[in-house]
Amino acid sequence: MTSPSTRKLHVVSPVPADIDIANSVEPLHISQIAKDLNIDPLHYDLYGKYKAKVLLSAFDELQGQEDGYYVVVGGITPTPLGEGKSTTTVGLCQALGAYLDKKVVTCLRQPSQGPTFGIKGGAAGGGYSQVIPMDEFNLHLTGDIHAITASNNLLAAAIDTRIFHETSQSDKALFNRLCPPNKEGKRSFSDIMFRRLTKLGISKTSPEELTPEEIKKFARLDIDPASITWRRVMDVNDRFLRKITIGQGPEEKGMTRETGFDISVASEIMAVLALTTSLGDMRERLGKMVVGNSKAGDPITADDLGVGGALTVLMKDAINPTLMQTLEGTPVLVHAGPFANIAHGNSSIVADKIALKLVGPGGFVVTEAGFGSDIGTEKFMNIKCRYSGLKPQCAIVVATVRALKMHGGGPDVVAGRPLDRAYVSENVALVEAGCVNLAKHISNTKAYGVNVVVAVNMFSTDTEAELNAVRKFSMDAGAFDAVICSHHAHGGKGAVDLGIAVEKACQNITQPLRFLYPLDISIKDKIEAIAKSYGASGVEYSDQAEKQIEMYTQQGFSNLPICMSKTQYSFSHDASKKGAPTGFVLPIRDVRGSIGAGFIYPLVGTMSTMPGLPTRPCFYEIDIDTVTGKVRGLS
Amino acid sequence: MTSPSTRKLHVVSPVPADIDIANSVEPLHISQIAKDLNIDPLHYDLYGKYKAKVLLSAFDELQGQEDGYYVVVGGITPTPLGEGKSTTTVGLCQALGAYLDKKVVTCLRQPSQGPTFGIKGGAAGGGYSQVIPMDEFNLHLTGDIHAITASNNLLAAAIDTRIFHETSQSDKALFNRLCPPNKEGKRSFSDIMFRRLTKLGISKTSPEELTPEEIKKFARLDIDPASITWRRVMDVNDRFLRKITIGQGPEEKGMTRETGFDISVASEIMAVLALTTSLGDMRERLGKMVVGNSKAGDPITADDLGVGGALTVLMKDAINPTLMQTLEGTPVLVHAGPFANIAHGNSSIVADKIALKLVGPGGFVVTEAGFGSDIGTEKFMNIKCRYSGLKPQCAIVVATVRALKMHGGGPDVVAGRPLDRAYVSENVALVEAGCVNLAKHISNTKAYGVNVVVAVNMFSTDTEAELNAVRKFSMDAGAFDAVICSHHAHGGKGAVDLGIAVEKACQNITQPLRFLYPLDISIKDKIEAIAKSYGASGVEYSDQAEKQIEMYTQQGFSNLPICMSKTQYSFSHDASKKGAPTGFVLPIRDVRGSIGAGFIYPLVGTMSTMPGLPTRPCFYEIDIDTVTGKVRGLS
Repeated sequence: MTSPSTRKLHVVSPVPADIDIANSVEPLHISQIAKDLNIDPLHYDLYGKYKAKVLLSAFDELQGQEDGYYVVVGGITPTPLGEGKSTTTVGLCQALGAYLDKKVVTCLRQPSQGPTFGIKGGAAGGGYSQVIPMDEFNLHLTGDIHAITASNNLLAAAIDTRIFHETSQSDKALFNRLCPPNKEGKRSFSDIMFRRLTKLGISKTSPEELTPEEIKKFARLDIDPASITWRRVMDVNDRFLRKITIGQGPEEKGMTRETGFDISVASEIMAVLALTTSLGDMRERLGKMVVGNSKAGDPITADDLGVGGALTVLMKDAINPTLMQTLEGTPVLVHAGPFANIAHGNSSIVADKIALKLVGPGGFVVTEAGFGSDIGTEKFMNIKCRYSGLKPQCAIVVATVRALKMHGGGPDVVAGRPLDRAYVSENVALVEAGCVNLAKHISNTKAYGVNVVVAVNMFSTDTEAELNAVRKFSMDAGAFDAVICSHHAHGGKGAVDLGIAVEKACQNITQPLRFLYPLDISIKDKIEAIAKSYGASGVEYSDQAEKQIEMYTQQGFSNLPICMSKTQYSFSHDASKKGAPTGFVLPIRDVRGSIGAGFIYPLVGTMSTMPGLPTRPCFYEIDIDTVTGKVRGLS
Repeated sequence: MTSPSTRKLHVVSPVPADIDIANSVEPLHISQIAKDLNIDPLHYDLYGKYKAKVLLSAFDELQGQEDGYYVVVGGITPTPLGEGKSTTTVGLCQALGAYLDKKVVTCLRQPSQGPTFGIKGGAAGGGYSQVIPMDEFNLHLTGDIHAITASNNLLAAAIDTRIFHETSQSDKALFNRLCPPNKEGKRSFSDIMFRRLTKLGISKTSPEELTPEEIKKFARLDIDPASITWRRVMDVNDRFLRKITIGQGPEEKGMTRETGFDISVASEIMAVLALTTSLGDMRERLGKMVVGNSKAGDPITADDLGVGGALTVLMKDAINPTLMQTLEGTPVLVHAGPFANIAHGNSSIVADKIALKLVGPGGFVVTEAGFGSDIGTEKFMNIKCRYSGLKPQCAIVVATVRALKMHGGGPDVVAGRPLDRAYVSENVALVEAGCVNLAKHISNTKAYGVNVVVAVNMFSTDTEAELNAVRKFSMDAGAFDAVICSHHAHGGKGAVDLGIAVEKACQNITQPLRFLYPLDISIKDKIEAIAKSYGASGVEYSDQAEKQIEMYTQQGFSNLPICMSKTQYSFSHDASKKGAPTGFVLPIRDVRGSIGAGFIYPLVGTMSTMPGLPTRPCFYEIDIDTVTGKVRGLS
């Protein structure tokens, strides 16, 4: 079962910079990684020497194969510094593959380029647990996010241009332009127009047969500009695009409109990519994305605009996950990276499905869910697993002594500022006080019917007494196991115990997957079920939220799962409430829909969907060695 | 010398749709094409089965090799329908490679995705002379345009954010944020900051040594918002972004600014990619791109903003040309596609240089120059060849009977409307009257010291008398040869005579390359030399143009070549003046600079840098067969 190409790292201490570790290892040719997984060259496309796109045909070929174990990595409520969830995901896989001789695939999200050049830096893991080549992981990859940007913005252009053309043309002229005569003078509908005709209940097949009333209904989308929810996107931290006015050129004849840009990973198309299950399914989801309403209140879709097919063509390569490798030569599938608050924050269903077949029975697929269990695992279970039909056996909750001290009442942790002394000297009582947060993540996760393993991501300043306190507390709170890990400093070797615990957890699963709510209850009942799981005593809706819930219910979208848009820094809506708050009333400010992706997202507070750049962004350090071609300064 | 993988096409009549022809041929694996060119697998990266990026190391390895023949394809002043320049370029190469047993590489521009979904459709050639796979050629390719979009917009975000941060911070605070202390409390400059320090004449190496005056000079770029010429870009036809107001979000504190988006291929970064000669050269060009002036009038560059290195990192793969193939299995290098009016409209120098080494002595590199000889060939010679040091032996002028009839006084030709009868029935006198346009293109092109071959791209409605008239006229006007071609209908077989003529023209070259103007004369003298070549009797400058010429001269940029931004539909500034107008005064409305790319561009009239979408864009036809994965409806 082992992958012959894995290797063990020689580590040095103190741990060097991430980019230096990444550059110190010569990656294997990716065809070697593919060969270890028994992927036929027919079923993947090389993108250079270290990346390959695995085609969906690889899955089709393995239809009869049984799945491997499915492990999801979540975390406790994090500090702004992050608690090492990606690093733990990668480290665990290096342990399983390079030390425990298991077939394993790591499934990760593709990071946005915005933060890479902004504040945060890259997202390939860290220390001796990384995906390589780290620069290719963090930049462009195989172009999926660029494809999302292009298709998102083609749809946006189609919306404004259509409104413009409808304003200046009569029904008849509009219709004649939409269905122009061919050389023989005959008009016909293009294939995509039949989707709109069907929606309108018109069963005629020739443009000549339509009545003036039907021509009007067909040709005039009559989009209400105030109702448009579709924004443009860019994979750059450009805060000046958050709110803009468009259409100020003289040729646009005064048809200005206020709108804005989001970062590309916030596009609904990214959520579609993450949740789709096949090319045909993606075509349908892209076509039914709702961009706004007609003035009569009917939802207007990408297919109404005639552009659902073109969007799919732009996304046809993006649907294939990208194969890469860890520092220790185990395979990684990188695919999709939807926002973890306005979307569901999980990597793709297709990558997980392919990976589960590739590793087969006894093998492991380890996938990451964004942020704490309230945001990450909850959406993984109730949205992603609901659409995929897959069932995880084990969920990992990553915890750090640092974050637990914060939950226990430690001082604020702020990115870019030195850590308070409390976080670098022993304080067992503070850790124990914070474990109430960990306990709630354990019990919330267990409720889905999976075994929970706590992974304590160890820092050099943690003491044995502190680590033991976390271990003991975890077991008392119902964890299947709790393991101290040092994969950042030691690579896979530092996560061998975690690997053994995860294997036992997977082998000892007995329960079926239980969702937090069924789909066929009302939108409000679903929101309330989730709010209760946070510890809320109730939910409060703004007038706008009430209006939107009514609208989506009327439009027939109330059967979709719910994707809460909430701060990741607290179980509640208030980022300052650490630990496990209770008795709060969750305020729902607004409710929106990603109808194509397939969820309704209530907004709890204001989420920024376009980050900014600091005075001195990461890009000041980033350059290229023009002789060797090596990238410098990526972190 | 022959390429073993070439094949001859079986053609049918009437000629099927482009996409049907493209889909009827199974492309060779691109590694086979690379093998025919003797490119070692070390020197290229596969991007799927039918595309590969040829690395610049391929050129380094061939340093000692002599170059092949260098052929540039231009055209006469076109109709809005185009006269088949790309198709002729591809057809000629199919003839040279598949019929005349020559080593040949076609060098083409990468098309923008905007027109593919808008009005024009793709740009892979047509009929039986095409680059395949046609969908991959027209969409995404290997991500170069996406890389340009990302880097252009990172620079744009850096500009507005810097102004924002400078507004709210004291010199000292700004400086401290730009040079933050490390863990030991020590401040240092990052590498890129030394570029600004050098520019300012500050030779100190530690932030602690700077005087308050130097701190202010270093940290405060003091960009004049009104002077910013850098716009954001998007590879989508989105007319509503032509003029916008940004910064209207509450967090941007009222710092709104009017600006706009161009289509990505209009970015200066595209022009840099086309004109660069190495990774090191690209790093320097990107760093010295000027985005605007300080309030004191000094040019502010990407390196002043600290972002020149990051831009290069984003462009590091884009610098490698993409290898593809024609329908008859000859190799194609696709690389860069700068706008042909605000930029120089030619594919890249690095692709041509690599190709000339790969074909070697006796082989042929055929490259296309955008639009007529006034726009395309003029810029090819005076800008591209000046930077590359390469010298073409032969220039092709593509002509059609249709366009000559228009120049002779035929009715307007309008895209999307049926052609007037004049264009589909014999009228030799009309053709002869229009040949004055062809004659001027021949003589203008000959003036560079190359042999001119006229390629008459034959349509089925052309008559023998009409075609003969063009041939005779061409020879009288000084062409080396003039050949009737039918490569659209017959593939390479239809351009065999053209291939033979081109070979003779290359073998019989005796003169050195002569530029139209030297670099060391004034900006105005250079503009006037070009205007004279158009047939103008003089040049008229607006006040704004005068002011800009003075500014660029003061800033030390007067030694750059000139890139005229003029309509392609006439030798003059007035698109309605057909034939070979004389005696007009060329009006210069404004003068701008692409300092990093390396040219000054005077604006003759108003050029749109962001196309729009029609009521029924091409995307209505474009969809995917979700079973086979094949793209439908691309044209």
